[in-house]
Amino acid sequence: MVYDLVIIGQGPAGLSAGIYASRYKLKTLILSEEPGGTATHAYKIENYPGFNSISGMDLMRKFREQINDSVEIKQEKVIELKKDDLFIVTTDKGIYKSKTIIVAAGTKRRELNIPGEHEFLGKGVSYCATCDAMFFKDKRVAVVGGNDAAAMSAMLVSEYADEVFILYRKEKIRAEPKKVEMIENNKKIKIINNTNVIEIKGNNMVESLALDNKYNESNELNVDGVFIEIGSVPSTVLTNKTGVNLDENGYIVVDEGMKTNINGFYAAGDITTGSNKFWQIITAASEGAIAAKSAYDFLKNGNV
Amino acid sequence: MVYDLVIIGQGPAGLSAGIYASRYKLKTLILSEEPGGTATHAYKIENYPGFNSISGMDLMRKFREQINDSVEIKQEKVIELKKDDLFIVTTDKGIYKSKTIIVAAGTKRRELNIPGEHEFLGKGVSYCATCDAMFFKDKRVAVVGGNDAAAMSAMLVSEYADEVFILYRKEKIRAEPKKVEMIENNKKIKIINNTNVIEIKGNNMVESLALDNKYNESNELNVDGVFIEIGSVPSTVLTNKTGVNLDENGYIVVDEGMKTNINGFYAAGDITTGSNKFWQIITAASEGAIAAKSAYDFLKNGNV
Repeated sequence: MVYDLVIIGQGPAGLSAGIYASRYKLKTLILSEEPGGTATHAYKIENYPGFNSISGMDLMRKFREQINDSVEIKQEKVIELKKDDLFIVTTDKGIYKSKTIIVAAGTKRRELNIPGEHEFLGKGVSYCATCDAMFFKDKRVAVVGGNDAAAMSAMLVSEYADEVFILYRKEKIRAEPKKVEMIENNKKIKIINNTNVIEIKGNNMVESLALDNKYNESNELNVDGVFIEIGSVPSTVLTNKTGVNLDENGYIVVDEGMKTNINGFYAAGDITTGSNKFWQIITAASEGAIAAKSAYDFLKNGNV
Repeated sequence: MVYDLVIIGQGPAGLSAGIYASRYKLKTLILSEEPGGTATHAYKIENYPGFNSISGMDLMRKFREQINDSVEIKQEKVIELKKDDLFIVTTDKGIYKSKTIIVAAGTKRRELNIPGEHEFLGKGVSYCATCDAMFFKDKRVAVVGGNDAAAMSAMLVSEYADEVFILYRKEKIRAEPKKVEMIENNKKIKIINNTNVIEIKGNNMVESLALDNKYNESNELNVDGVFIEIGSVPSTVLTNKTGVNLDENGYIVVDEGMKTNINGFYAAGDITTGSNKFWQIITAASEGAIAAKSAYDFLKNGNV
């Protein structure tokens, strides 16, 4: 049996593609090891239009429920993706053939890999300032990182928090000069260079960070939250054998129709160069819809 | 007083931009003559991820409720948009200055331009099934067009009317397969292809349509009403004096950050060339979010 479409990934992009594919009546299979993607890590989402406040888990459940029975969803780990005449997708449980493919496998946030980081995820530890800054009104918050995203996260957090510490492992943060100037002029923000966080501590919620260097004569910095902004990496393990074009950071290069350089091969969500790399649930869902539309047009036009 | 951002339009794109602008704490004003945009005309939306089924009116209300108080929303008709040092927006009630602007004014319904169309507007002629379907209980009604909107309008009208004719100028209606199946399975609906309406006739109210092709051996089809669903054109009345680049069909040309050729001028939704011109609520909402992010970045980088 040959599918019209196999979607790899079950985050906002993959599930939105599934919703549209089911409306287009494409014989579709959605594959991913775990349901929901990184969106399920957000304990409170307030910027997906339509929901004042919803957990990532609940929102992804709603997406999934909207996909009708013509679409199969399987919890299987994809281990290989090849293109022959058809796309051949090998999982830990089977082999599937498809006329088109949408890769929506997302990214992984780069992690500090320190004690407390996983334990306090959603309890003061966050990887998304746009999502969570507002939960730190009048608090003390750290931002770990020295890139543009770290600088912008610090700026945004400073609009809510009382005090923001940027912790950067090297001598001088490497955000673009305008952004550096902005954070230097912001009285709420303090930059602490040459310092690594070595542990995140607390009881139920984050209470402090252990530092490898003294700040104000202490190796402990009391904060209510910490945003980890040390970049993310696309999940390209799968795609690097397919010949699909990646940009210099490993993101799948897509055009405005979410097409890649390979016929019938689409991509959507955080793994792509789409939406100006503004990684949001709303942008991922939009890309998924567009990718499904492109796959449908491709199949209808008989290009397979 | 100078706004950080003025958003023109209150459809999915404008409101999503408003949601993001409010999170970025931009001093924002949303202007539009009517709330909700064309999305409010949709009586049933089943493809916006997160909602199995919701009316356009309800979905737009949810978007609006998600915008916090830092954003003003005014029901005013924008009559002029100029760029000086700042953007100057003139409405029927006032003049507003802003550092950045997002045009999300959407599209206007395309007209047939045939005799009787204007004469019988509101007397049997309608461009909004959601608004007017209920007035045709137990009547005979035509829907002109072959796109998704035409199919959905026919479905809605069939919940009231006795008989519904879909009149399409080409060989086969081009709505998505799921919708085609729905209308084909609906016993009240008849599809008449290869047929143009050339005149709308009646006395006080619509009584019949003159067709350029015979149906049931007659060039006249007796109906009590006609819904015109033949697509839309961008609402560029506002923008054509600003020097913003439009494509050959009048859509505002945007890049992947929803930027136009003018500094600080962004656009989102159906009025743009974005999202591969796949005009959906999900794509419009995504574009609104991206446009707000771009405006925020622009303001923070002090380019004004």
